[in-house]
Amino acid sequence: MEILKGNAVVGQSGGPTAAINATLAGVIRGAIDAGKNGIINTLYGMRNGIEGFLSENLIDLTDRFGNEDDIATLELTPAAALGSCRKKMKSPDDDPETYEKLIEIFKKYDIRYFFYIGGNDSMDTVLKLSKYAASHEYEMRVVGIPKTVDNDLMVTDHTPGFGSAAKYVAVTVKEILRDISVYTTKAVTIVEIMGRDAGWLTAASSLTSLSGGKAPDLIYLPESEFSPEEFLASIRRIQQDHPALLVAISEGIKFADGRYVGEGLGGRKVDAFGHVALSGAGRILEQLVKDEIGCKVRSIELNLPQRCAAHLASKTDIDESVGVGRAGVDAALNGKSGVMMTINRADTDHYSVYFDSSDISGIANGVKHVPAEFINADGNGITDECVEYLAPLIMGEVAPKYECGLPVHIVL
Amino acid sequence: MEILKGNAVVGQSGGPTAAINATLAGVIRGAIDAGKNGIINTLYGMRNGIEGFLSENLIDLTDRFGNEDDIATLELTPAAALGSCRKKMKSPDDDPETYEKLIEIFKKYDIRYFFYIGGNDSMDTVLKLSKYAASHEYEMRVVGIPKTVDNDLMVTDHTPGFGSAAKYVAVTVKEILRDISVYTTKAVTIVEIMGRDAGWLTAASSLTSLSGGKAPDLIYLPESEFSPEEFLASIRRIQQDHPALLVAISEGIKFADGRYVGEGLGGRKVDAFGHVALSGAGRILEQLVKDEIGCKVRSIELNLPQRCAAHLASKTDIDESVGVGRAGVDAALNGKSGVMMTINRADTDHYSVYFDSSDISGIANGVKHVPAEFINADGNGITDECVEYLAPLIMGEVAPKYECGLPVHIVL
Repeated sequence: MEILKGNAVVGQSGGPTAAINATLAGVIRGAIDAGKNGIINTLYGMRNGIEGFLSENLIDLTDRFGNEDDIATLELTPAAALGSCRKKMKSPDDDPETYEKLIEIFKKYDIRYFFYIGGNDSMDTVLKLSKYAASHEYEMRVVGIPKTVDNDLMVTDHTPGFGSAAKYVAVTVKEILRDISVYTTKAVTIVEIMGRDAGWLTAASSLTSLSGGKAPDLIYLPESEFSPEEFLASIRRIQQDHPALLVAISEGIKFADGRYVGEGLGGRKVDAFGHVALSGAGRILEQLVKDEIGCKVRSIELNLPQRCAAHLASKTDIDESVGVGRAGVDAALNGKSGVMMTINRADTDHYSVYFDSSDISGIANGVKHVPAEFINADGNGITDECVEYLAPLIMGEVAPKYECGLPVHIVL
Repeated sequence: MEILKGNAVVGQSGGPTAAINATLAGVIRGAIDAGKNGIINTLYGMRNGIEGFLSENLIDLTDRFGNEDDIATLELTPAAALGSCRKKMKSPDDDPETYEKLIEIFKKYDIRYFFYIGGNDSMDTVLKLSKYAASHEYEMRVVGIPKTVDNDLMVTDHTPGFGSAAKYVAVTVKEILRDISVYTTKAVTIVEIMGRDAGWLTAASSLTSLSGGKAPDLIYLPESEFSPEEFLASIRRIQQDHPALLVAISEGIKFADGRYVGEGLGGRKVDAFGHVALSGAGRILEQLVKDEIGCKVRSIELNLPQRCAAHLASKTDIDESVGVGRAGVDAALNGKSGVMMTINRADTDHYSVYFDSSDISGIANGVKHVPAEFINADGNGITDECVEYLAPLIMGEVAPKYECGLPVHIVL
C-alpha cells in the first residue's frame, strides 16, 4: 500500500444531529494520529460543507484541537460545529466549472483526503468527487461517513445520530407517560415524532417498556396505512381499561390513498390560510379525537430537540459515532475512496459492532424502511423483535461538562 | 408547645412538575423521623388529592418507603406519584356534607397532620380545611407546600418546580440555538414556552448566555404588550446582522387590546374548524413571519417536557423541594396550621435560602408577575437584574438512576 502524504479536509452536511460532532471528533483524532506519523500534516474543516469549501472558508482543525479537553467537549456539542449546507452537487457534465474549481482548491491546499459527514445527498457528493478526481489524475481519497437521526440509510445496521435521537424520544415519552397518568379523567395525548418516510424514531417510543414502564398504547409508522376508523376504535377500546392514553405517531403517517395525514381529512381545509404545511399529523388527529370522542386531547410535536438534545445523548451512539469517524480516516489511509463507512452488528451474544466501508454506488438514494416483521399485525404497535433491535442503541449515558447550570458547547 | 400525636396524610394537587415528588420525598423523610420520636405513627398518601381522600383511597407511605433507595428514586420521578386532582373546594356553607365527611375520615384514621402540595387552588383547600377543623374542635394541623413551574405564587421568593422547568427551557433553547446556527440562509425559529399570565419560564430562556452562549434574539412575556409591528421590525433589523434568529415567547403574550396572540390576528379565523384553542401564539407568529417577511420560519412548542423532564432537573430545585417538604413537617410539628411554606433568599453574598411559613389568607389568588425592572425598555428582552435573580435556580445537575438506557421512576 502506497502511503499518500498531504493534507485533509472534513465537512458536515445535511440536517444536524446530536452526534455529528462526535464523528467530527473521531476524524480529528484519526487525523492528528496520522499527523504524528507524518502522513496528514493539517486537517482543515470546511465551513458550511462543500459551499464553504468552494469559497475557501476553511479552519485549521489540527491547530484548533491541540487540546484533548476541547475534543471531548466537541463530542457532546450538538449540531454541526462546522456549519452545514444542503447543496446537491450537479454532475461534472452539467457543471464543469465547479469541479475544475474544486480540483484547483485541492491542489492549492494539497488536499489528499476528503471526509464528508452527512446523509444521502452527502454520499452522492462523495461518489461524484471520488470519480472526478480519479478520472482527472488527481490522487485523493474521498470517504463518506453517515449520519442521520432517521436511521433510513441502506447497508449500515444503523446510523450515527439515531441512537441519541431514539434515546431522547424514549426518555421523553417515558416522562410524558408519568405526567399524563396523574388524573382520573379520560384524555388522549398524541406525540408526533420525526420520520417522514421511515418510522424508526417513532418505533423507539416503545422502548419505554424496557425499564418497568409501559409502552405507548398505540404506535403508528409511515410503513403502515393509517385508518382513522381503526384509530378511533382502538382509543375507545383502550379507554375501557384506563383513562389516559398515549399515542405515538410518525410525522409521515399516510392514509390508505397515500396522502399524508398531516394534509388533513378528506375535503377539510387544514387551516384558514390554506397552508397545508403548517399543520402536522398530530394536530389533525387531535382535532379528530376532539370531534369524534370528545374527551380531553393534546398533541405534542417533539420537534428539533429530537436531533439536538446532546445532554441526553446515548453513550453507545456517541462512542460509535466517534469510532466510525476514526475508522473513516483509517479506511482512507488504507486506500479506500468512494466509500461510505458502515456500522455492522457483530454476531455475538452481547451487542457489539465493527466498522467497515461499502461502495457508495449501492447506497445513495435508497431508503431503509422499518421491516414488516417489526410492526404488529394491526399496524398499531411494535414487535418484540423490533425492541430487541433498538434496545442496545440507547444504552449508556454521557456526562457533559456543565457551567452555570448549562452544558458547555464548542463554537467554531 | 404541646406535642400532637397521631397519623398524617399527604396529597398532591394541580398540574405536575419535575420536583413535586421531591417535596413528597421531603414530607416522607420528615414524617419517618417524627415516627422515630413516636409523634407520627403512619404517613398516608391520598391518591388523586382530596378527591381520593374522600373515597379513602389511601396508601401507607411509611410502610412503602422503608427503603432509602426508593425515596431517592422518588425524588427524581416526574409528575405526581400519588396522582393529582383539580378539585376546587366549595366553602363549608355551600357544601357542608363534604366537610362533615372529611372530619369523619380524619377521625377514622386519626389524622392530625394534613400536608397538601400544590398551587393556588390547593392553598385555598388548606385554608378552608384548617379553619373548618379549628372551628369544629378537631385538632389537626394543615400545611400547604407550594409547587408550580410558573413561579407565580406570592410571598415565596420562587416556587419548587420552577428551577427545573427553567433549566429545561434554558438547556433546550441553548441546544436549539446550536441547531439553527448551522445554515447560512435567513430563518426565524419561534420557541413557545409555558406561562399564561406570568413570563418567568420564558425569561429563563435568557440564561443561555451564562455559559458563553448567546441569548435568544427576542424575548416576549405576557407582562408586556405584544406589537406585531415592533416584532417584524426587530426581526428585519436583526437579520441585517445574522441570518438565524431565535425568538422566545410566552404562550400567554397579548396584543395591546388585551387579546391573546394565540387567538389570532384581527379578523382572521385561527383554524378551519373555528377552534381557537388549537392554535398557539407560536403558530400565529410563524404564519405572520411567513406572510410578511417570507423567510424560512418554524415554531416549536416546548410543551409538557417543560414540567416533566426530571432527567434534566435542577439540583438546586430538587434539594430545595425536598427541603421545603421536610420543613413543612417541622412547621406542623411546631404547631403551625393554615400556612403555606415559603422559600426565602438569604441576604448573603452567595445564594442561599431558608424556609419559612406564611399565612395563606394573604397568598391565595394573587399572581406574581415578572416585575417591570426585569424587562428591557423595548419589551423584547430581559435585564441583567432578571438574569441575576434566575441564575442560581438552575444550578447543579441531578444523577438519576438509569436502567436499559432509561431513567428509573417510582410508580405507586
